[in-house]
Amino acid sequence: MSIRILGYAAQSAQDSLKPYRFERREPRADDVVIEILFCGVCHSDLHQARNDWANSVYPVVPGHEIIGRVLSVGSAVTRFKADDNVGVGCMVDSCQHCDPCQHGLEQYCEEFPTLTYNGTDRHDHQTTYGGYSEKIVVSDKFVLKVPDGLDLAGAAPLLCAGITTYSPLRHWNVGKGSKVAVVGLGGLGHMALKLAKALGAEVTLFTRSAGKEQDARRLGADNIVLSTDDSQMAAVKSRFDLIIDTVPYVHDINPYMPTLAISGTLVLVGYLGPLEPFLNSASLVLGRKSVAGSLIGGIAETQEMLDFCGEHGITSDIEIIQMQEINAAYERMLKSDVKYRFVIDMASLKA
Amino acid sequence: MSIRILGYAAQSAQDSLKPYRFERREPRADDVVIEILFCGVCHSDLHQARNDWANSVYPVVPGHEIIGRVLSVGSAVTRFKADDNVGVGCMVDSCQHCDPCQHGLEQYCEEFPTLTYNGTDRHDHQTTYGGYSEKIVVSDKFVLKVPDGLDLAGAAPLLCAGITTYSPLRHWNVGKGSKVAVVGLGGLGHMALKLAKALGAEVTLFTRSAGKEQDARRLGADNIVLSTDDSQMAAVKSRFDLIIDTVPYVHDINPYMPTLAISGTLVLVGYLGPLEPFLNSASLVLGRKSVAGSLIGGIAETQEMLDFCGEHGITSDIEIIQMQEINAAYERMLKSDVKYRFVIDMASLKA
Ligand SMILES: [Zn+2]
Ligand SMILES: [Zn+2]
Ligand SMILES: [Zn+2]
Ligand SMILES: [Zn+2]
Repeated sequence: MSIRILGYAAQSAQDSLKPYRFERREPRADDVVIEILFCGVCHSDLHQARNDWANSVYPVVPGHEIIGRVLSVGSAVTRFKADDNVGVGCMVDSCQHCDPCQHGLEQYCEEFPTLTYNGTDRHDHQTTYGGYSEKIVVSDKFVLKVPDGLDLAGAAPLLCAGITTYSPLRHWNVGKGSKVAVVGLGGLGHMALKLAKALGAEVTLFTRSAGKEQDARRLGADNIVLSTDDSQMAAVKSRFDLIIDTVPYVHDINPYMPTLAISGTLVLVGYLGPLEPFLNSASLVLGRKSVAGSLIGGIAETQEMLDFCGEHGITSDIEIIQMQEINAAYERMLKSDVKYRFVIDMASLKA
Repeated sequence: MSIRILGYAAQSAQDSLKPYRFERREPRADDVVIEILFCGVCHSDLHQARNDWANSVYPVVPGHEIIGRVLSVGSAVTRFKADDNVGVGCMVDSCQHCDPCQHGLEQYCEEFPTLTYNGTDRHDHQTTYGGYSEKIVVSDKFVLKVPDGLDLAGAAPLLCAGITTYSPLRHWNVGKGSKVAVVGLGGLGHMALKLAKALGAEVTLFTRSAGKEQDARRLGADNIVLSTDDSQMAAVKSRFDLIIDTVPYVHDINPYMPTLAISGTLVLVGYLGPLEPFLNSASLVLGRKSVAGSLIGGIAETQEMLDFCGEHGITSDIEIIQMQEINAAYERMLKSDVKYRFVIDMASLKA
C-alpha cells in the first residue's frame, strides 16, 4: 500500500514552496521506509525549484541532505532495522551493472543515477520527491548509516556538501603533509576546510573578502589568502598540491593556477559551465598542472565519509529553520547570508 | 681555450638561416665536448628563428634534438669518455637545488632551466647556441647516453618529441590494459603512438583527415577515429584513460572530453595559449575528468626513455636533410609535409 504524506513543493518556477500532499510508493522488498528528521538546504534545491537548469518536472519536492530514522524495512533488507539513524544523499538508485557502478562510482553511472528528487524512478518511472517531506522510501543500497554520537541536524549537510568535498580530497590522496587550498567559504567550502584539516593537510582559504579570517581559522584554515591582493597571491606561488574550488558561478580560475605546486590539481566541485575567461594552457604545461572536476561521491565513499566524520566529530555549521521558513531561507542563500548551511527541522511540518 | 666552430643561424626574424661562425666556451671541469652528428628539426626551432614567441635573442642557432659523439671530457666527468654516443635535449642546465630539480623535474626548475638555445648560460651569461652546429659543450649532468644499436639519426628526435610524449605516458601510469588516444599525427603524435604501443596500451589515433589509416597502424595505432565524424566519436564514448593532445595550435578540446573514461585525463603537450573556445567544466565534473599539460621531461626520465627505446628498437620516422636545406625544410614543416621529423646530417656542414 502506498504511503500518503505531506511535503513542501514548488508547483512552478514562479511559485514559492508550499505544502503539498503526495504518495510514496508501496515499499519493495529492498526498501527502507524512513521518517525524515532533518533535511539540509542545498543550492541545487533552489535551482531545481526555480527551473534554473531548465529540467525541472513539477511539482518539485527538493531536498537531498536527508537524516532520518528507520520506520520499517522490506523483507530483503538486512543492514537496517527500525529506529536506526540513517542518511540519504543525492542519489537513490543507479543501474548497478555498468563499470562505474561496479567500482562504487554510482554518481558517474553510465545510465545516470536516479536523483533523490526531480529524477525518474527506474522501476515505476515516477518522478522522485526529495527530503522536504515527512517520509521517504529508498532502496537499502542507497541508505547510509549515521554513526552514533553525531549531531543529527549537523550531519544532514554531510550527505551533499560533505561528500562533494571529501571525495576529491580522497581521490587526490590528501593526507599528512599535503597542502590544500579551498576557494570560497560557503556550504561546500566550510566542509572542505574541516575535512582537509581532519585528513592532516595544511589548509589555506582563498577568499575575495576580508573579515572571514576568524571564522576560517575556527573551521580549520591554517592560512587565509585574499585572492584580490597580488602580494598575498605571489606569496603562495607553487604552494598547493590540491585546490578545491567550490565557487558555484562562472569565475576566472587562471589566477589560482600559479599557486599550484608542480603536478598539482585544481578541482571544480561547484560550477557547471564554460570556463570564462579562457583558461590558459601555459599554466598547465609549464608545471604539469591539471584542472579537474568532481561530482559528489559514491555510496561506499559516502559511508566512509560519514564514519570519518563520526570518528573526528565533524558536522556542518548549521542554522536550523522551520519548514515554513524555506522561502525566506532561499532569499538569504542567494545573498550568501548563512553560516554555513540551513537545515530544516522536519518536526515543524507537523506543527 | 674557447672552441671556434661553424653553425647555422638566423640573424633576425626576417632572415633565412645562413652559415655562422661562433665560439663555444672553454670547457669546464664538468663539461663534455660533443661532435654533433645529427640534429632533429623541431617546430620550436622555426618559432625561435622567426621570433614567433617574441623572446628571440639574435643570432639564433636552433636545434635541441642532438645526437653526437664525445670528443673530450673535463676532469670531473666520470660518466662519459671519448667516442661515446650521446644525446642532448632541450635543456643544458638548471639550478640543481630547487624542489623540482631535486626530484628530477629539471624542466620545471623554479629558476627556469637553461635552454639549449636562446637560453642564457648560468655561469658566463652568454646566449646558448643549439645543435645546428659542429660541436656543443654541455655539463655532464645534461648529457644522455644513447643505447647501443639505436639508429643515431632516428634517435635524434627522441630528445624532444620522444620525451615530450613519453613523460606524460609514464606520469599517468600507462601500461598494459591502458587505453590511450593521440590527437594529431606529426612529430610528437607519431612518437606518442609508438611509445604508448610499446608500453602495452591499446592505442587510438584521432585525426581530422582520412587517409592516415595505413601509416597510423604501422606506427602502432590499433584504431583510427575521424574526429570530424560524429558517429565515430560517439562509438568511443567514455573509452580512454589518457588522451595525449599534440596539436600545436589553438583548437577545441571539448569534443574529445566525452571520449575520456571516468577519471580520465586529456594532456596538452603541444600548445601554449588560451583554450578557445571555452572549455566546459560540466565535462570535467560529470566524470571526474582532468585537462592537464606536460612539458618535455626530466633528465633521468629522458635517460629512461632512451633506454626504453633501445630495448624496444624505437626511433623516429625521419627524413634526413643537409644543413643547407633547412630553410626549405621549414617551409615544408609549416605545411605538415614531413613524415615525421626532419633530421639534419651534420656532416653536410663540412661539405
Ligand atoms: Zn546538493
Ligand atoms: Zn551504472
Ligand atoms: Zn622541441
Ligand atoms: Zn631548479
